[in-house]
Amino acid sequence: MLESLKEQVLEANLKLVEYGLVLFTWGNVSGIDRESGLIVIKPSGVDYEKLKASDLSVVDLDGNRIEGLKPSSDTATHLELYRRFGNIGGVAHTHSTFAVGFSQAAKGIKPYGTTHADFAFGEIPCTRDLTEEEINSEYELNTGRVIAECFEKNNINPDAVPAVLVHSHGPFTWGSDCYEAAKNSAILEEVAKMAYISEGLDAQPASQAIQHKHYFRKHGADAYYGQK
Amino acid sequence: MLESLKEQVLEANLKLVEYGLVLFTWGNVSGIDRESGLIVIKPSGVDYEKLKASDLSVVDLDGNRIEGLKPSSDTATHLELYRRFGNIGGVAHTHSTFAVGFSQAAKGIKPYGTTHADFAFGEIPCTRDLTEEEINSEYELNTGRVIAECFEKNNINPDAVPAVLVHSHGPFTWGSDCYEAAKNSAILEEVAKMAYISEGLDAQPASQAIQHKHYFRKHGADAYYGQK
Amino acid sequence: MLESLKEQVLEANLKLVEYGLVLFTWGNVSGIDRESGLIVIKPSGVDYEKLKASDLSVVDLDGNRIEGLKPSSDTATHLELYRRFGNIGGVAHTHSTFAVGFSQAAKGIKPYGTTHADFAFGEIPCTRDLTEEEINSEYELNTGRVIAECFEKNNINPDAVPAVLVHSHGPFTWGSDCYEAAKNSAILEEVAKMAYISEGLDAQPASQAIQHKHYFRKHGADAYYGQK
Amino acid sequence: MLESLKEQVLEANLKLVEYGLVLFTWGNVSGIDRESGLIVIKPSGVDYEKLKASDLSVVDLDGNRIEGLKPSSDTATHLELYRRFGNIGGVAHTHSTFAVGFSQAAKGIKPYGTTHADFAFGEIPCTRDLTEEEINSEYELNTGRVIAECFEKNNINPDAVPAVLVHSHGPFTWGSDCYEAAKNSAILEEVAKMAYISEGLDAQPASQAIQHKHYFRKHGADAYYGQK
Repeated sequence: MLESLKEQVLEANLKLVEYGLVLFTWGNVSGIDRESGLIVIKPSGVDYEKLKASDLSVVDLDGNRIEGLKPSSDTATHLELYRRFGNIGGVAHTHSTFAVGFSQAAKGIKPYGTTHADFAFGEIPCTRDLTEEEINSEYELNTGRVIAECFEKNNINPDAVPAVLVHSHGPFTWGSDCYEAAKNSAILEEVAKMAYISEGLDAQPASQAIQHKHYFRKHGADAYYGQK
Repeated sequence: MLESLKEQVLEANLKLVEYGLVLFTWGNVSGIDRESGLIVIKPSGVDYEKLKASDLSVVDLDGNRIEGLKPSSDTATHLELYRRFGNIGGVAHTHSTFAVGFSQAAKGIKPYGTTHADFAFGEIPCTRDLTEEEINSEYELNTGRVIAECFEKNNINPDAVPAVLVHSHGPFTWGSDCYEAAKNSAILEEVAKMAYISEGLDAQPASQAIQHKHYFRKHGADAYYGQK
Repeated sequence: MLESLKEQVLEANLKLVEYGLVLFTWGNVSGIDRESGLIVIKPSGVDYEKLKASDLSVVDLDGNRIEGLKPSSDTATHLELYRRFGNIGGVAHTHSTFAVGFSQAAKGIKPYGTTHADFAFGEIPCTRDLTEEEINSEYELNTGRVIAECFEKNNINPDAVPAVLVHSHGPFTWGSDCYEAAKNSAILEEVAKMAYISEGLDAQPASQAIQHKHYFRKHGADAYYGQK
Repeated sequence: MLESLKEQVLEANLKLVEYGLVLFTWGNVSGIDRESGLIVIKPSGVDYEKLKASDLSVVDLDGNRIEGLKPSSDTATHLELYRRFGNIGGVAHTHSTFAVGFSQAAKGIKPYGTTHADFAFGEIPCTRDLTEEEINSEYELNTGRVIAECFEKNNINPDAVPAVLVHSHGPFTWGSDCYEAAKNSAILEEVAKMAYISEGLDAQPASQAIQHKHYFRKHGADAYYGQK
């Protein structure tokens, strides 16, 4: 079942390797079929070079394993994001170096320039730390809950900010499908590296006007970037 | 038309990828045929790996689209540079990491050493921030205007400083043709990285004498670098 | 003798090159056959590209050379680790850039996040400086002794922290076999780079709860990462 | 003439590219035949990928061009080093990123650890700035003189410290032949990067005892690193 989605999710997982974002078995990408409510996700701890479409795990939105190998240990986080962010079709998680640097410092990535604004509308937030209780029971589910809480409490639209930094952990990104989710992980890492350099040079965030301009040049009804 | 220039501009765009300066569809290179006043430029949002010479956009100096796909969203900036900087034959724009770092910090790149002086005579300037009005109307044209203003107000010769950092945005570079424009983007990025490291080590700019020596060793009538 | 172990140790040494951890002949990996008490180790100063299984050195736990070329100058350090850390099957030593940076600064790597906690339970310690006497006589043996002392004095379990930074020198890592030892060198370098970035952003160590969670998600009886 | 030396110097120049130390035509390596007093050096401004052994320049110790293309603009610096440092057989010059960073900051590289001590005995010095007179007349020769002066005034043995940073410029390295000179450029760059990281972590230089130990483990009559 879901053979086409499996091929796409396999390819999107391998993109993480191509983009230079993962070491060994780290990281994972999933994609959802919104009609059936089924998710395809990388199995836990499998080498990217050995990964086959038929190994991919199929789970439903309640986390029941339908098919394939044992799913990624981060599956419950992905599922919570699919439940809470209704428009997304793919989720990616990496431990990319600079995005992890900001996560470990518990700092969001401020919108220092147009590279950021082309990607996301405003700061990429960092979640609060999970409590001991949230860690000790249903940790991965609570990670997803804390991400959604962060967006809701701060009135951030997940369709306009397709990335988050989890406190002491690392980034999750999403998009309309699994390819965009993986691609957003690569852009986030580059934006994080630029922000690190900029902070070392005492940068201030870009003006609201230029953030707005660049974001809407690429996104929404009035976008004029790209071919029709 | 302009088949030879299209091949050159295609090749120069692909150099940005080879030099490791661009992610995804970011960046663009153009070249001008000064006789006809026509410019060839990368089309907007097209993957480098799929780019063909016949896809390249041809526009005139007033921005009228003559041929090819929809041109880069940054076209109006390129055109203003061709109008204001009469000797240049090619323009390149990237979001290369360290040059963007300085742009986001709104800092020029000081001439810390001979690598810089071999490339440019004096500081690589960073423009002022665009006003809200300049951003909201004719943004890309105004970006070009602010670059030209920066060079005029500070009496900088664009033939001697073939690069600029746009505030909150990133670098534009130029040269006698599209290849040199692309090459200058690579040199600028390396010079920016060296400057970042040097500032972390509390560097001071190089002496006027050594800057002068290195610049004129490579440029102008008395240059003695390279074969005849 | 030990033909199979030699093949493994050869392959694990070449992994250091593949992981981008070594320059020229720097670094070495060894493996032990606990039954016979014999160790296979990279010979001293041999280029990785010319290394053959039959060149590898075989020594006993007292350092007697049994077979092959002259062993790595760091052999006595490896042997002391095998004698003191009874569960390990492989040892690796590199001069990887960021791990050396921390070693040269005489600083342990604090557990800033889950990438670290997935790898090691608590800080990666840095040893004390060797005394002049320890340096001038049996230097390599004393390096091993100082590593073991560091773990004993600080009650660190080498099975839970498979890496150390030697003061003014660089990292040693170990594991159940030579492959894991080499792999741990790659993970340590990435963790060190992330820690360097995080310290530049004023990070605090991750909470005990999340460190505990991630470590035991991957290690020990209740681990649930990976396939069964 | 000197066909064998030309092949070696060609190969050593291409090593700079392989080691990732040069951009475009930057950098150069030379080798000397001490018997005839002739030097083979990279021609000025030629692309590495187009370089042929027959293009290499042959000059004598007084700088007279004997054969081949126009020699590197840095030739007079190489020649002064061959005249002043009697034991060296090869010289390399690059603009490698971190070594340039220290040069631009006018700072020597302190011996923070054993990677440095394996390579050089004590600090890699940075020269004084050249005076305006030294820059305006015989600049490249004076660069060589200032390097030699730096070693003589500070009682540094060029056989024990095979590298220097030229103020506001970049590194020169040397060795027993052109291969060792090029290799030393690669080691210097790595040592510079490690020192940059270490300084960011507030490192102190390694003890005299460990510097001494590592240097003499690899160099001199009592060296015991490598095969016999």
